[in-house]
Amino acid sequence: MKEIIIKEVNYDEENYAHFGTKFLIGNGYMGVRGSMEEYGAKHMPAVNIAGVYNQASSEKWRESLNAPNPFFIRLKIDGEELSLPNSSDKVVFHEQSLDITKGIHVRKTIFKTAKGNVTVETERFAGMTHFNALALKYSVTADYDCVSSITSGIDGEVWDINGPHFVNFEVEENSVKGICENGVSVMTSAKGVPFGDMIGTKSANEEKTAQNIISFNAKKDAAFGLTKVAFVQTSIDEKISKEPQKPNFLLKYDTLLEEQKQYWKDFWQENFVEIEGDEKAETALNYSIYSLQIIAPRHANALSIPARGLSGQVYKGAVFWDTDMFMLDYFILNDPETAKILLKYRVDGLKGALEKADREGYNGAFYAWESHEDGIEACSKFNVTDIFTGRAVRTYFDDKQVHISSAIVYGIKKYIKLTGDTSILFEGGFDVIVECANFYLSLLTSRVFPKMGEPRKLEILDVVGPDEYHERVNNNAYTNRMAKFVFEFTLEVLDLAKKETKKDSPLLPFPEVLNDLKNGLKKIIPDMIDFAVNDEGVIEQFDGYFDLEDVSVDVVRSRLKDPREYWGGSNGVAYPTQIIKQADVVTMLAMFKDEFEKEIMKANLDYYEPRTEHGSSLSACMYGLLQCFCGMPDTAYPMFLKSAEVDLAAPKKLWAGGIYIGGSHPASWGGAYQMLVYGFAGLKHNKDQKSKGKPNISFDPHLPKHWKSISFHLTIQGKKYKAKITHKKVVFDEVKI
Amino acid sequence: MKEIIIKEVNYDEENYAHFGTKFLIGNGYMGVRGSMEEYGAKHMPAVNIAGVYNQASSEKWRESLNAPNPFFIRLKIDGEELSLPNSSDKVVFHEQSLDITKGIHVRKTIFKTAKGNVTVETERFAGMTHFNALALKYSVTADYDCVSSITSGIDGEVWDINGPHFVNFEVEENSVKGICENGVSVMTSAKGVPFGDMIGTKSANEEKTAQNIISFNAKKDAAFGLTKVAFVQTSIDEKISKEPQKPNFLLKYDTLLEEQKQYWKDFWQENFVEIEGDEKAETALNYSIYSLQIIAPRHANALSIPARGLSGQVYKGAVFWDTDMFMLDYFILNDPETAKILLKYRVDGLKGALEKADREGYNGAFYAWESHEDGIEACSKFNVTDIFTGRAVRTYFDDKQVHISSAIVYGIKKYIKLTGDTSILFEGGFDVIVECANFYLSLLTSRVFPKMGEPRKLEILDVVGPDEYHERVNNNAYTNRMAKFVFEFTLEVLDLAKKETKKDSPLLPFPEVLNDLKNGLKKIIPDMIDFAVNDEGVIEQFDGYFDLEDVSVDVVRSRLKDPREYWGGSNGVAYPTQIIKQADVVTMLAMFKDEFEKEIMKANLDYYEPRTEHGSSLSACMYGLLQCFCGMPDTAYPMFLKSAEVDLAAPKKLWAGGIYIGGSHPASWGGAYQMLVYGFAGLKHNKDQKSKGKPNISFDPHLPKHWKSISFHLTIQGKKYKAKITHKKVVFDEVKI
Repeated sequence: MKEIIIKEVNYDEENYAHFGTKFLIGNGYMGVRGSMEEYGAKHMPAVNIAGVYNQASSEKWRESLNAPNPFFIRLKIDGEELSLPNSSDKVVFHEQSLDITKGIHVRKTIFKTAKGNVTVETERFAGMTHFNALALKYSVTADYDCVSSITSGIDGEVWDINGPHFVNFEVEENSVKGICENGVSVMTSAKGVPFGDMIGTKSANEEKTAQNIISFNAKKDAAFGLTKVAFVQTSIDEKISKEPQKPNFLLKYDTLLEEQKQYWKDFWQENFVEIEGDEKAETALNYSIYSLQIIAPRHANALSIPARGLSGQVYKGAVFWDTDMFMLDYFILNDPETAKILLKYRVDGLKGALEKADREGYNGAFYAWESHEDGIEACSKFNVTDIFTGRAVRTYFDDKQVHISSAIVYGIKKYIKLTGDTSILFEGGFDVIVECANFYLSLLTSRVFPKMGEPRKLEILDVVGPDEYHERVNNNAYTNRMAKFVFEFTLEVLDLAKKETKKDSPLLPFPEVLNDLKNGLKKIIPDMIDFAVNDEGVIEQFDGYFDLEDVSVDVVRSRLKDPREYWGGSNGVAYPTQIIKQADVVTMLAMFKDEFEKEIMKANLDYYEPRTEHGSSLSACMYGLLQCFCGMPDTAYPMFLKSAEVDLAAPKKLWAGGIYIGGSHPASWGGAYQMLVYGFAGLKHNKDQKSKGKPNISFDPHLPKHWKSISFHLTIQGKKYKAKITHKKVVFDEVKI
Repeated sequence: MKEIIIKEVNYDEENYAHFGTKFLIGNGYMGVRGSMEEYGAKHMPAVNIAGVYNQASSEKWRESLNAPNPFFIRLKIDGEELSLPNSSDKVVFHEQSLDITKGIHVRKTIFKTAKGNVTVETERFAGMTHFNALALKYSVTADYDCVSSITSGIDGEVWDINGPHFVNFEVEENSVKGICENGVSVMTSAKGVPFGDMIGTKSANEEKTAQNIISFNAKKDAAFGLTKVAFVQTSIDEKISKEPQKPNFLLKYDTLLEEQKQYWKDFWQENFVEIEGDEKAETALNYSIYSLQIIAPRHANALSIPARGLSGQVYKGAVFWDTDMFMLDYFILNDPETAKILLKYRVDGLKGALEKADREGYNGAFYAWESHEDGIEACSKFNVTDIFTGRAVRTYFDDKQVHISSAIVYGIKKYIKLTGDTSILFEGGFDVIVECANFYLSLLTSRVFPKMGEPRKLEILDVVGPDEYHERVNNNAYTNRMAKFVFEFTLEVLDLAKKETKKDSPLLPFPEVLNDLKNGLKKIIPDMIDFAVNDEGVIEQFDGYFDLEDVSVDVVRSRLKDPREYWGGSNGVAYPTQIIKQADVVTMLAMFKDEFEKEIMKANLDYYEPRTEHGSSLSACMYGLLQCFCGMPDTAYPMFLKSAEVDLAAPKKLWAGGIYIGGSHPASWGGAYQMLVYGFAGLKHNKDQKSKGKPNISFDPHLPKHWKSISFHLTIQGKKYKAKITHKKVVFDEVKI
């Protein structure tokens, strides 16, 4: 297997936020930003913990927690501190790299001092075999004799966006515990093992920091430094993790490193995607796969992936529809166990969803737009800051983006179809689906006296569709279709329930209720408004969309008075125009491609693409998918690259309405993966066709011209297959394990 | 009868806009701002024409037209120009006054020149007996011999807000005709008649201005100058006016002056309101009556009064609910003929209202929020400018302020009840009412599956109530109640139709349609949502209002970053809070006072008053009215004074979201009048009580403590009465004419 290394040469302080994201390591339990070891909170280092949240005060947003940072190191040579960015004028060489084939982050910096060169080399990784473990090797070499001290700390002064979260600290010799107001705590423990000519070591703990100063008598060209194995624990590990772990200081750095290498070697054996003829695309896609893997909550019973992965508190560390609609497919097709963990997170979130629906005046389950533990809604009703007044602006993401519940159901459907495993239904999935159906039923309204000459229809009013720039619209095509899908799929699983009745679902003892629902849904579905279509076959995104100003993205952009302005909301530049943030109608077409003629899909691509700002990383992949479905792989190719390279390329948009939205883009990686398998390879799940022993799938490949072949593994309905696809041929075989 | 003179002493250039409004003269056909004669367009002089509109370009708003200004005068003494504001450093005395008892505007300015004092005195008025006529006397006296020239012009370079409207000019010796793109034209003709030691006169016309330079050889202390009788004509006079008039240069200034004085003498004989014990209140209320009288469209067949009267193009010279809800009562009770002209304007507007409803997706009649001729909607969907970006902001005044149609019906109801005249029903009024009912029927929606435990109700969603700061709300208490009122009143007039069938109404030939409507309305009314009430009896303004931030007006004001910011819309300071622009629930309570206990009214006054910014001049009078109904006349008194003095006091708010909103406030004058008769005097229309010869009204007076008595005339059901009310006694007698 190839080695893939992502690299940046030369020190570039400006890009610290971007590199923190690009060089992320992690293991699903936590993510560690690719920041320099000596960086303090200002430069946004983070050991971001999955699924552990806190709200610092009622004025501030809830968000995920960052653990005390065990990688914090400061170096002195002959009394002079050498650190970035302070000593950047002394840097003669700097390189930061990530070997995704081994899951190891490496750094090398050479400082030129008055006496000569000092080389700092670090190597670090997050344990894939020990979920609570992090490891660092910090090595220094000077090309002259010197006296050096290395301060190795666990820094409790963490970077917080809506913090500080820790109001109390327990600092001990080798650990820092940060404790939140509500009692939730995160503890980092770490022991350094020095190497080289050590003089001595002394403890120098501070209020929030446990640290040791290690002195060295360093000979010319002799390496010195330390290795460090750290452990992170939280007060809710018992609740979240399958097998919670304790610190184990007997675990050696080298042992862990060997295990790490073996894990990734095994992983890539089965997960590497080969794209013959396009190294750039191959690198980007495998980087996407790496990135999804390091945030997969394999350690947990039921947990999901935040919209910005584990790259920090951006977007509150909350789980969005990104997981269910964009990332889930990768896990379903490669790691169904993790896919089920993601779905079980939604089962656990039903409680919060029922409460939210009730709070907002509806029945059933209205899932959190920004989900925290137990489905708690983290989305503020004021989610954007007016850049000119500094005031929070009322937004409608949480209370009007009602399509979120349908994404959960859509996720369950995909899982069941592609894995063939219906167990999730009997572990709470039935309840999720039925309650989502109840929710959409309670959203349906009807005019008592429709406009003369028009039929009486069931409408869904006052929503926000995927295109968030247009708030509070009526009959969003995507939302209406997805609501109908929920009804349709509910009918399907009700039939399934009859066949496979088990006793786990609390709803099943009441067949008459389910029958009522079934009959009700059958009556309602035909009366629902789908969407309006113009003479060219273009579907109107929502009522009145075609009446909005029809103007180019560039013109709309030129109306900005400040690049940080929010485009949406009623004062935003996009709002009065047809310019949309992201794929909306196109996402609907991609989801329901079998219902539409290619001409219709093309007409909508042609219409909407030039009107899309692609202000969301969820946009390009949906356009790309639909372009593939229309047999235009070369048109789709740039969309694929854009999606897969989202965090490799220079960052585009770090601000929206005054809010920092940097961080990684897992949905975009997942979208790139979907483009590969559903788009270019043309993987299709065929409803009816079933032949013995073979899974009911097929391929209808459309490769970009310059690609020779693609090869990848897939797990379908419990069996592993390997596919190799060229322009002319599909080879698809079961892999015996 | 007393003389009431409004006066300002000392020249104050800053206040030119305010004084232009305060010293307005007019006659219903046109209003003339109280600007100095020498003012050019920059200082906003205007001869604002009623009911004549134009749109200069598709980028600009439609608005009423200003006629070429015949009062334009410039003065030179010994070659030196004396004019304001240029010569303001030479002003030793300045006084501007308006004798409302005679309808005459007077000005006196003394300039000190190197040689002595020059006194300019002017007198001007708008003909109440000749609707197209304006008159000016311009008189100069110097206390030394001098040579003088007076340039007397008709200035076609008019002040326009969304102009220029005139694209062509026809300038002749004594007239200027301005012609719009669409062919509509306005012509002003005027002849000056010089007096004093004239040397000669010569024509000096310019492209847009007809002017004569008159030279004088002026002796010390001898007056010289000119009188000027001017006539305004428009190309649509035939359509608008009962008796269109032509210029008549035989009409002498002095003759017109005598007629003017007699008109106002007769007028005040029957319309003066005496408030014994409070000269300030008496002056303000009679100023309000004067102000309503000079904008009453007595000359017209069917015409209404713009929200800013005839004080300029502010608010586009458009007609709002202000007329029907606030001003109409004064005319009903004093000049029913004019009241009917105002209602017939709405009958003519039905065409536009049907078109608007159709355009917006509804049935029936959706009246224009800002009405121009034939009910054309002048309200832009972008009615506010974001002060920080300079961009137009999408507002929902025209498409969501659906309560406008109910105001029209409410106006018709008041007219019929208080005049006893049902003729308007048979001149199109029936159609208006039934189409408004159809409109509200088509607004009703219902949830297919209401929230569990809640009854299925008919709702009106997505509206803007009187409080415009909160856009797009659901179930606004005022709107819902008014819609129900329209249904109720429709049932009443359908019964009336049966009794008094005449052949004029196109609907009457179809009794079965009306029967269907009747049965439908009867079924629907009980299922309508009225409003939610909390434990204290406070009615929730709209769904979710009580959940908004509860904070004081001062705190909200302190959040402004610019005093010109718009408080409403989703980026405005008031939007996320309970702070409202104006009476909303309170207006509803005032309109339907007989349905509520006093305790409920009080609870709502106590709750809403501190939460009201009173950012609209329609607010104070509604609070005042309800306070009177609660028996609190002394609490109500400041509201009364605020309403009556709205244009006498210093101007409060000249800008809203970057839009100039100065100009006069007729609705506030009408509101003050309503407070007097309905509030303090307690005039009540009693539905059932009828005794022979007596009108079915009664008085339940609550005078402010310091008032001794009030006396006024009223016309009720065709008869004129005089009322004198003290704290202890009501005397109410018919006046034989």
